[in-house]
Amino acid sequence: MTDTRASIDAYLQTHQNDYIQATMRLCAQPSVSATGEGVAACAELLAGLLVQHHFQVQVFPTAGQPVIVAHAPGASKGTLLLYNHYDVQPAEPLELWTTPPFTPTVREGNLYARGAADDKGEIVARLAALDAVRAARHGELPCGVTFIIEGEEESSSPHLDQFVREHRADLAAQAAIWEAGGQDSEGQVVVSLGLRGVLSVELSVRVMDRDAHSGLGHVLPNAAWRLIWALNSLKGPDERLRIPGFYDHVKPPTPRERELLLALPPRDELYRRNLGVRTFVRGGAGADMNLAVFEPTGTINGLTSGYQGPGGKTVIPARASAKLDFRLVPDQDPADILAKLRTHLDAQGFTDVAIEEQGSTPPAKTSADDPFVAMVARAGAEVFGRPSLIEPMLGGSGPMHIFFEVLGPVPIVCAGIQYWSNRAHAPDEHFRLKDFVNGARHIARIVENFASAS
Amino acid sequence: MTDTRASIDAYLQTHQNDYIQATMRLCAQPSVSATGEGVAACAELLAGLLVQHHFQVQVFPTAGQPVIVAHAPGASKGTLLLYNHYDVQPAEPLELWTTPPFTPTVREGNLYARGAADDKGEIVARLAALDAVRAARHGELPCGVTFIIEGEEESSSPHLDQFVREHRADLAAQAAIWEAGGQDSEGQVVVSLGLRGVLSVELSVRVMDRDAHSGLGHVLPNAAWRLIWALNSLKGPDERLRIPGFYDHVKPPTPRERELLLALPPRDELYRRNLGVRTFVRGGAGADMNLAVFEPTGTINGLTSGYQGPGGKTVIPARASAKLDFRLVPDQDPADILAKLRTHLDAQGFTDVAIEEQGSTPPAKTSADDPFVAMVARAGAEVFGRPSLIEPMLGGSGPMHIFFEVLGPVPIVCAGIQYWSNRAHAPDEHFRLKDFVNGARHIARIVENFASAS
Repeated sequence: MTDTRASIDAYLQTHQNDYIQATMRLCAQPSVSATGEGVAACAELLAGLLVQHHFQVQVFPTAGQPVIVAHAPGASKGTLLLYNHYDVQPAEPLELWTTPPFTPTVREGNLYARGAADDKGEIVARLAALDAVRAARHGELPCGVTFIIEGEEESSSPHLDQFVREHRADLAAQAAIWEAGGQDSEGQVVVSLGLRGVLSVELSVRVMDRDAHSGLGHVLPNAAWRLIWALNSLKGPDERLRIPGFYDHVKPPTPRERELLLALPPRDELYRRNLGVRTFVRGGAGADMNLAVFEPTGTINGLTSGYQGPGGKTVIPARASAKLDFRLVPDQDPADILAKLRTHLDAQGFTDVAIEEQGSTPPAKTSADDPFVAMVARAGAEVFGRPSLIEPMLGGSGPMHIFFEVLGPVPIVCAGIQYWSNRAHAPDEHFRLKDFVNGARHIARIVENFASAS
Repeated sequence: MTDTRASIDAYLQTHQNDYIQATMRLCAQPSVSATGEGVAACAELLAGLLVQHHFQVQVFPTAGQPVIVAHAPGASKGTLLLYNHYDVQPAEPLELWTTPPFTPTVREGNLYARGAADDKGEIVARLAALDAVRAARHGELPCGVTFIIEGEEESSSPHLDQFVREHRADLAAQAAIWEAGGQDSEGQVVVSLGLRGVLSVELSVRVMDRDAHSGLGHVLPNAAWRLIWALNSLKGPDERLRIPGFYDHVKPPTPRERELLLALPPRDELYRRNLGVRTFVRGGAGADMNLAVFEPTGTINGLTSGYQGPGGKTVIPARASAKLDFRLVPDQDPADILAKLRTHLDAQGFTDVAIEEQGSTPPAKTSADDPFVAMVARAGAEVFGRPSLIEPMLGGSGPMHIFFEVLGPVPIVCAGIQYWSNRAHAPDEHFRLKDFVNGARHIARIVENFASAS
């Protein structure tokens, strides 16, 4: 085992540059799912790369962008599933990039490009890890490995659920590695075990056909006020949602999850320094804030009504709208929450406030007690030289739930090349070259350990 | 007297086309105070027109656009003051005009142009009226007439107060005709006696330096929610402002004003038909709604926060803002209301919500018992062949207060060429040619009657 590991590490050190070059070629191909720019071409490019790296590759069309399923058999009967995506966020605002987003550039030990960290570098680091394992084992993987790589993750994966249900047999596995794992601000690997669900909606109200003069404010209805009152009925400064039944299915963290949450470092100083946060929700601070990830939220993403230009304009808005997302925790169900939202608004007299659903996904998490979790954490500690942290649930959301539905209660955890300041979704997105190598070493050890246990 | 009137009417009938041509020349010159486009050139053009019509004209520069003061002496010692403005609203959206806004066009008995109704046609109709009176009296006016014509009315008249205070002597008069009088939807002349005050503000709140990912909604503050709660603290669905002391100085209508308000025709069907209004404030309908103009309002003009594009974006907004105007009634004072708004927000814990004042003007009204009011109403009935209505106060605002301050309690009333559907401030602004003539006849009779009484 020690020899295999040494051989893996040596392979990655020797061939690092080849994989960085491959990542740069992949990042040079735009693949913006929000606009469709280059997405199909990127799927072709990636499929070719997977074939070069000894995978049996299938590119499946969907009603949206293609899904790639790539399989490589192994010595044991176990199979590890790897989830990734080849689409990227839009690169705008372009003027804030130091070098152009689709001209990948290495400087100061980092690779800069749109998609470098999220998620193309991660895909290539996984290929590097698998090649290193093969090289240490005379060309054979110790277990089966299946990639599922979608092209619509940055657009809420609208076609993934159906695809996964229809390709259940192709995706059979006993454990899975999600995208986007890596290190926190202190350099500790964070093994994340779950994602909150989300329900995104737009609330809108129209009270007239067109805006009117505000001198008639004593008689004409005002869409902005209607919206304010409707929103205010949803949540007050105590942050507690007032929708009846909203909390019915919320399960608190288990004692073990609670222990893990309180062991995570407090992040308030980080948020203060990097976002200029003035005060936190409910005045919270320190490790207690970590527990709040097990509470659902209701977040206004945007407000629009009436005149928004410079100076004033004396109008009564005919229409007003708000975008909101509700982050949901086990065992909340987006469809149930949507129904309760409608019932609540009606009961409060806001039958005139329309709800448009803009996307949803249920929450999903892996048990902190699963032996796979401890193994991934140990492997991380070994590679990065510091104890790993286990994060029972992330605040964000993603299409993890469908895999539990199709695969059963297999463990799904995050492990990868990310670090806290990689500017994913923002200008100057990048990864650190040293994390690329260490992230690949981590994946290689997970494959080795998983194969021994399976 | 009957001969004079017949002579006036004949003059206006005969020369109508000359005055329509003069109006078209004035309307062909843009004068958009919001952008400054053509305003100075329009002042020059108008000054020339006033000189041609036997006025002594002074064009005064201000820190903003020029103010024109034009005087013509008369046989009696009385002077009538006429307030107008030569600036216009922006013409956008241009694509909704049937013919270009600055290419005045007559069709189907109407003159279409930006500024036709508001307020250039009105100025020329007044010149026509005065010429008709002169023609019937061998070239002499029976009383003095002074025009004050400003160039910033569509931008809240920011420099008029100071100008009027500094030119008190030039503006001395015993009565005044405001801009924008005319007929309601039933063809009755409405003699309006006052304007509400206004306080325009922008409320804004910033909770972070930049937007953050909504997966952190359980810990990071949200500017949109702060704004919602602050706005909700100002007013609920009962439409009553919750700012302590807001109603302290509100005077209810006098019994006579109440009687006049209840005699005005109900307008709910008009608003339903023309604006598509679903339901009215407080469910009001009928003549009772007319009384509400004596109540102050708090109107949201616009809301802005976070992501407002298509689809969803999972962000927490760092900043949110709302534009509001408060329409004020006698004897509310904008400065007092602004101070009370700040005190209220602070008391409610919204010290983080900033207030930017964007303009204000106090309320102003003429006594319904003034004999000048009855005279203008009688003259209107005579010209239009239907009883006039007297409207004790309009819902809108304007710089009327400063004239009371400088001239003392002289009567100021509205009379002109407007009708309810003239699309002032909107594409296809126009006046009806028949109203131009009748509006001029009305002004001519007011001048005659005022001179006999003074």
